Amino acid sequence: MKELQERIIRDGKVLSASVLKVDAFLNHQVDPQLTMNIGKRFAELFADEKVTKVVTIEASGIHFALATSVALGVPFIYAKKKKAVTLTEEVYSAPVHSFTRQETYQISVSKQYLQAEDRVLIVDDFLATGAALVGLTQIVKDAGAHLVGIGAVIEKSFQEGRGLLEKEGIRIESLARIESMSPEHIHFIEPAATRV
Amino acid sequence: MKELQERIIRDGKVLSASVLKVDAFLNHQVDPQLTMNIGKRFAELFADEKVTKVVTIEASGIHFALATSVALGVPFIYAKKKKAVTLTEEVYSAPVHSFTRQETYQISVSKQYLQAEDRVLIVDDFLATGAALVGLTQIVKDAGAHLVGIGAVIEKSFQEGRGLLEKEGIRIESLARIESMSPEHIHFIEPAATRV
Repeated sequence: MKELQERIIRDGKVLSASVLKVDAFLNHQVDPQLTMNIGKRFAELFADEKVTKVVTIEASGIHFALATSVALGVPFIYAKKKKAVTLTEEVYSAPVHSFTRQETYQISVSKQYLQAEDRVLIVDDFLATGAALVGLTQIVKDAGAHLVGIGAVIEKSFQEGRGLLEKEGIRIESLARIESMSPEHIHFIEPAATRV
Repeated sequence: MKELQERIIRDGKVLSASVLKVDAFLNHQVDPQLTMNIGKRFAELFADEKVTKVVTIEASGIHFALATSVALGVPFIYAKKKKAVTLTEEVYSAPVHSFTRQETYQISVSKQYLQAEDRVLIVDDFLATGAALVGLTQIVKDAGAHLVGIGAVIEKSFQEGRGLLEKEGIRIESLARIESMSPEHIHFIEPAATRV
């Protein structure tokens, strides 16, 4: 997605070979129009998949899930990282290890909102190690629902996430795939012509 | 907001005299069209205020902030509950005590994204004890920005939040004000005719 790549180049900051800061427009301060365009793009890419639910994880996937679910006209669910006092019923849950925070936490989705008939599109801000996304796919599988694929806003293609998920046969669409980066330069993997 | 009140009556669940569960449509599974309508309503209510930034707190305020900022055509910021590894620069922060979780945490906003010239609208899902909203107003004040008001999706009017904030002279617009509730009945405070 050209608009997104240009914005990453303009306003993103590479802090190290693996840390890209996009909190000027994606995950702290947020550009609403770019976010809605990202949602539209995910909706286009998965238009033929008869998606019934968009699933993400709190917090930084939520606005992309809303944008996508507005474009698809279906509800979205955000997995919780802590058990809420109001989440009394049974939940599907999975462990996620955060490499940035060096901790493992449980994510959970109420069983009420994911059914075997659901066709699920997972979206998130980053695909890097894939830890959070593997947890979400586990939850979709536990619900017996059909996973149509994953939409990631930014992919760090030099990390292992895509490989892990593709091994499971999961379709992945990332709107900006970073092959390598340094404070001076960000190199994107260009999408195949048919998918621009 | 009639659509919201009707939805609360239809799909909300009162778990106790103070706990209302709305995770079927607002804060776990989310109705995207209702969310966008909520954002439009906040934008209408504060249309004359020349808002330059919408501010909320992760996680359950994020989708309402996006919807509001789409309608207003301005960026939004979500305060973080934990310091991110990528949040290296200076932050404005404030302590928030969560009564549901019985813990105190710090919320923070990067100084880069809030300026003295900003006219800020704070939005959040619930106004109850007001703890999170008092923390956010403190951050806006520390930035020297102008707070035009607070938009709350649901207000538990029987809790102390509104009183605390009104004492500071802050304008509050809640789209559903609950005066009292029980598993059998939810009683709303009807808005003044001019504000319907």
